[in-house]
Amino acid sequence: MSILVVGSVAYDDVTSPSGSMKGILGGAATYFSLAASYFTQVRVVAVVGHDFGPEQEKVFHQHGIDTRGIERASGKTFRWGGTYSDNLNEAKTDFTDLNVFEKFHPQIPKEYRDTKFLFLANIQPTLQANVKREMKHVQLTGCDTMNYWIKGTPKELAETLKVVDVLLINDSEAKMLAHETNLPRAAQKVLAMGPQALVIKHGEYGATIFFREGAFGIGRHPFRAPALPMEEVKDPTGAGDSFAGGFMGYIASQKEVNREVLKRALFYGSVMGSFAVERFGTERLQSLTRAEVDTRFQIFRELTHLS
Amino acid sequence: MSILVVGSVAYDDVTSPSGSMKGILGGAATYFSLAASYFTQVRVVAVVGHDFGPEQEKVFHQHGIDTRGIERASGKTFRWGGTYSDNLNEAKTDFTDLNVFEKFHPQIPKEYRDTKFLFLANIQPTLQANVKREMKHVQLTGCDTMNYWIKGTPKELAETLKVVDVLLINDSEAKMLAHETNLPRAAQKVLAMGPQALVIKHGEYGATIFFREGAFGIGRHPFRAPALPMEEVKDPTGAGDSFAGGFMGYIASQKEVNREVLKRALFYGSVMGSFAVERFGTERLQSLTRAEVDTRFQIFRELTHLS
Repeated sequence: MSILVVGSVAYDDVTSPSGSMKGILGGAATYFSLAASYFTQVRVVAVVGHDFGPEQEKVFHQHGIDTRGIERASGKTFRWGGTYSDNLNEAKTDFTDLNVFEKFHPQIPKEYRDTKFLFLANIQPTLQANVKREMKHVQLTGCDTMNYWIKGTPKELAETLKVVDVLLINDSEAKMLAHETNLPRAAQKVLAMGPQALVIKHGEYGATIFFREGAFGIGRHPFRAPALPMEEVKDPTGAGDSFAGGFMGYIASQKEVNREVLKRALFYGSVMGSFAVERFGTERLQSLTRAEVDTRFQIFRELTHLS
Repeated sequence: MSILVVGSVAYDDVTSPSGSMKGILGGAATYFSLAASYFTQVRVVAVVGHDFGPEQEKVFHQHGIDTRGIERASGKTFRWGGTYSDNLNEAKTDFTDLNVFEKFHPQIPKEYRDTKFLFLANIQPTLQANVKREMKHVQLTGCDTMNYWIKGTPKELAETLKVVDVLLINDSEAKMLAHETNLPRAAQKVLAMGPQALVIKHGEYGATIFFREGAFGIGRHPFRAPALPMEEVKDPTGAGDSFAGGFMGYIASQKEVNREVLKRALFYGSVMGSFAVERFGTERLQSLTRAEVDTRFQIFRELTHLS
């Protein structure tokens, strides 16, 4: 089944210990849709400026991604610059030029309105909730957010959390959102805010999914997917969005949402996140095959599998 | 088969967000031997002062631990005080009174000399190497160390690493030892220093074992054991030593050391570490049953197990 992602398309300037790249195609919706495209048909709602041309659009089209929801506004595309030093888990933001993204008001094309799976990438929470409300046929909604909204717009975020099914955030975001330093307790507090399930991404340590009691007709026992210890991390940008793309894309490709599907989805999320960081920008996500994806899935599975 | 641990027995004053306890039995050898006692017969070499009496000795004897190697020196037993704030992964040391531990020169009782498994808890590296050299019948030696020795006595530590089989350290110690911030690359550098296998403990995220090419007749693919996300962490002291006790104790209980045994050992290490932190000091490790240990082993296994 199709999945719709609403979020940013951007140009990134990235510096890491492996080098420096300027003006590479990025943005949450870009990473998400490329990662999800290995599992299902993807539709994008985003905004770009006059500097987004056929060459960039081709990256989406080569993966069968529907770009009719990418709005062209007058002005420049969102630009972000960041530097990773030895701690590859955290970028120092060098600049953020929101440009056309500043006035982004997601417009859902008529042709997208039957979409059954929705991912609300990291944008202002009220915009997220509005999109959810417009999408009447959605069966499962995933959602991302960040420290900026957790601190800056807690009330708006609380409203959004009431209408989403799965929230995907990282350790520090979960702790900040719950005002709780113990991760499983933080998870229970976040689940009490609305979502059926909470995926907490641990970077190089993988991710854990926590469930509300009775969510998806399954118990509340958490499940954890490990990540592969990576020798080569060139550019961590987009790892979380690629994780979300693998996770949500796999779910959208399945007939039903049950515990086993969610567990496998967590592994596929880890897999896509691990590919994303191997090259600068979306380079690795552009060149994958489904066979490579499944080979790494098996490696991740073996990584913790006792016979 | 028996396992010998050489390390500290201490009294700890611990403060954590869950409360405060003074003068509780601790020390690396104590945590290690209690954890290992659920798998195999344990022998201890340590030093204590006049303040170590029958009540403390009983804790060991109730678990069938052989204490003939615990030397009574004149003076006080090693005392350590530490405080955990919200970040339970790191203690602030309030005081360290080495007392009789300052002049600890491990004396191996005659009756211990046939021991086949050896664990060198965190003591001065040359003392560790000397013990290893004395123990002529040892088949497998595990070893711990810490930042203090990595920085302060790198040459001595390098000599020790040449004569041990498995090194067990945490993420930051591995990175410091290898002068390398990428964990898998750090692991390869540490393995090049001598050990056949390296266990890197990730705290609440579990642990990874890295192998030298051809070590134990098996490939070099790493294996990871997750930890259970814990809602209740009362006192993290001794988690690493309890991990080592579960890991080494399980290995010592098996007929041979192969990849599957080492994988299961990693899970048992995670299991014993997770029990240790549930109560202050060694309280939880004292009261376990093997059935509880195996139940948690199954929970950990299920935590990442795809059907």
